[in-house]
Amino acid sequence: MVQIPNTPAPASPAPPRSVPTSADVARLAGVSRATVSYVLNNTSAVRISEPTRRRVHEAARELGYVPHAAARSLRAGHSRMVLMPAPAFPVGPLYSRFITDLQSALSRLDYTVVQYGTAQPHGDEAARAWAELRPVAVLVPGAGLGPRGVAVLKRSGARAVVTLGPETVEGAYALLVEHEAVGHSAGAHLYDRGRRRIGVVVPRQSGLEVFSAPRLAGVRQAVRGTDATVTELPLGYDEASAARLAARWRELDLDAVFAYNDEYAMLLMRALQDEGVRIPEETAVVGADDLMLGRLLRPRLSTVHLELPSGRELAELVDRAVRAPGAPPETHKVLRATVVHRDSS
Amino acid sequence: MVQIPNTPAPASPAPPRSVPTSADVARLAGVSRATVSYVLNNTSAVRISEPTRRRVHEAARELGYVPHAAARSLRAGHSRMVLMPAPAFPVGPLYSRFITDLQSALSRLDYTVVQYGTAQPHGDEAARAWAELRPVAVLVPGAGLGPRGVAVLKRSGARAVVTLGPETVEGAYALLVEHEAVGHSAGAHLYDRGRRRIGVVVPRQSGLEVFSAPRLAGVRQAVRGTDATVTELPLGYDEASAARLAARWRELDLDAVFAYNDEYAMLLMRALQDEGVRIPEETAVVGADDLMLGRLLRPRLSTVHLELPSGRELAELVDRAVRAPGAPPETHKVLRATVVHRDSS
Repeated sequence: MVQIPNTPAPASPAPPRSVPTSADVARLAGVSRATVSYVLNNTSAVRISEPTRRRVHEAARELGYVPHAAARSLRAGHSRMVLMPAPAFPVGPLYSRFITDLQSALSRLDYTVVQYGTAQPHGDEAARAWAELRPVAVLVPGAGLGPRGVAVLKRSGARAVVTLGPETVEGAYALLVEHEAVGHSAGAHLYDRGRRRIGVVVPRQSGLEVFSAPRLAGVRQAVRGTDATVTELPLGYDEASAARLAARWRELDLDAVFAYNDEYAMLLMRALQDEGVRIPEETAVVGADDLMLGRLLRPRLSTVHLELPSGRELAELVDRAVRAPGAPPETHKVLRATVVHRDSS
Repeated sequence: MVQIPNTPAPASPAPPRSVPTSADVARLAGVSRATVSYVLNNTSAVRISEPTRRRVHEAARELGYVPHAAARSLRAGHSRMVLMPAPAFPVGPLYSRFITDLQSALSRLDYTVVQYGTAQPHGDEAARAWAELRPVAVLVPGAGLGPRGVAVLKRSGARAVVTLGPETVEGAYALLVEHEAVGHSAGAHLYDRGRRRIGVVVPRQSGLEVFSAPRLAGVRQAVRGTDATVTELPLGYDEASAARLAARWRELDLDAVFAYNDEYAMLLMRALQDEGVRIPEETAVVGADDLMLGRLLRPRLSTVHLELPSGRELAELVDRAVRAPGAPPETHKVLRATVVHRDSS
């Protein structure tokens, strides 16, 4: 790899070429700035002759003029920008696909989707930074935003604030993603298969608590009031951690494990097999996410299949919220979890 | 899952509350708008008394005033926004980590990183849409942007355009990501291990051609002028496709395969093992990406480890380019590929 040299920049940079403005276009076309604005924004309310229209377009092309979204939104009083802070948690394939899908659907409704960098603090603190971009709607994944943050965004012109996370926030539309359902379906499945001593993997990887804690709680709920026990199993995402856990498996005396997701399930299953633990005879294993890799394992991995609503449905909700900023915010449960039973449980 | 109802919005939405402006803050604090601007932008050039400063901050807090980034950048003539179009290709863990790292590093240099939605057309067509946001720098992953797109961005005030892809583009800084190097190191490794009939998996999944074509070319380069042959193996990312390929493995008569990446390697290895093909005795298998899962396979998967520069290095390059917009654009090769030899080859 060629190293990128760390040369200091010259102290006084060359002046950037000047950016063409709508005034330049107006001058070249011999019309007013208002006319330029009417033509380039395709305003149908004002009648402008074809030759004038053509002259404006030619002048804009010649000068390389691009309208300024910010200036336009300052004039209009609102933008078409939907801002999504990038999530603070590591993103899996389900979520990536969902976001791509959602962005396409919003673009088709003529919104510009902009993802705000991850490095910022989340929650109310971050809301001020988001508000500076004056989005018409904000879609916040994960937890952390509170009623104060929602208020800051609304006062700055956001017509809709939508959270996609574990709880409702006052003033915002809530798409409730309840990971309890994932643990609940895994726990109920293992109980139905006759298992009574259930381990639950809790990843040590930071940023995953928001998913792992409710998944664990969901397993506990599923077996509440029965004779089954639930044991928490912290696990790092590396072979050494998995080997350490597997080495004390027999003293843990578990007959089943919900392994958080398919990747952790694959990691733990390999370590258990290396210890001679027979799956599913001695220990049943269930993952989550329904990745293709689970079907490639032997025994084939049982898993929890997760589903989020389509991007189109969610885009329509955002659009509806933008068009009716006075309406009371809606709440929807959006995560569906179903067990896919294969050979490991 | 509760379905999101598709209720039409009321035709005339309630008027949104009015957004507080710096004029409101000025009125409440009893000062001029210029003073508000000096205080809230922390301008050190102008001396303002502590009591006035305090009055402005209190008024801003009381009204919930948030400065308007767009208005500020209109006044300043440029923004601190670094715009990154989201890539058109499916994003793997290496790239995700790299982007997160880069965004953190740019934030520390006081840039706001904004990712532009994926759904837009890429290349020169898209450049106009990006230009409307008036970013100070644009960082474009993948191929497609041409010299015309670069010119549009620069004319609209972008001081630096940086491409992260397979080729240099006139007017732009180029971070060359040459996937030939990945195929080359895999091919050279297999040749050194005595293999002469090398298959190369080419995924059918769309969007991956930009990686798979140069990886294939790299394998060809590595064995050019030797007695080794290279056979292209198109493969869908599903068990049925892998089983079909494995079923005709013996007639293909290959003694090695570079499987594009670790996930395809895992898919093909499973299908080959199900057909009774012994790995590595009959066929050596090499993946790429060095995922943890490769170490969990039996035999452990040989792979190509990829490395990109640190986010900090790249952020410094962007900052240098912004500060010296007249400087000739730099070109750097940034992808390093190294074989990790395990048991499958």
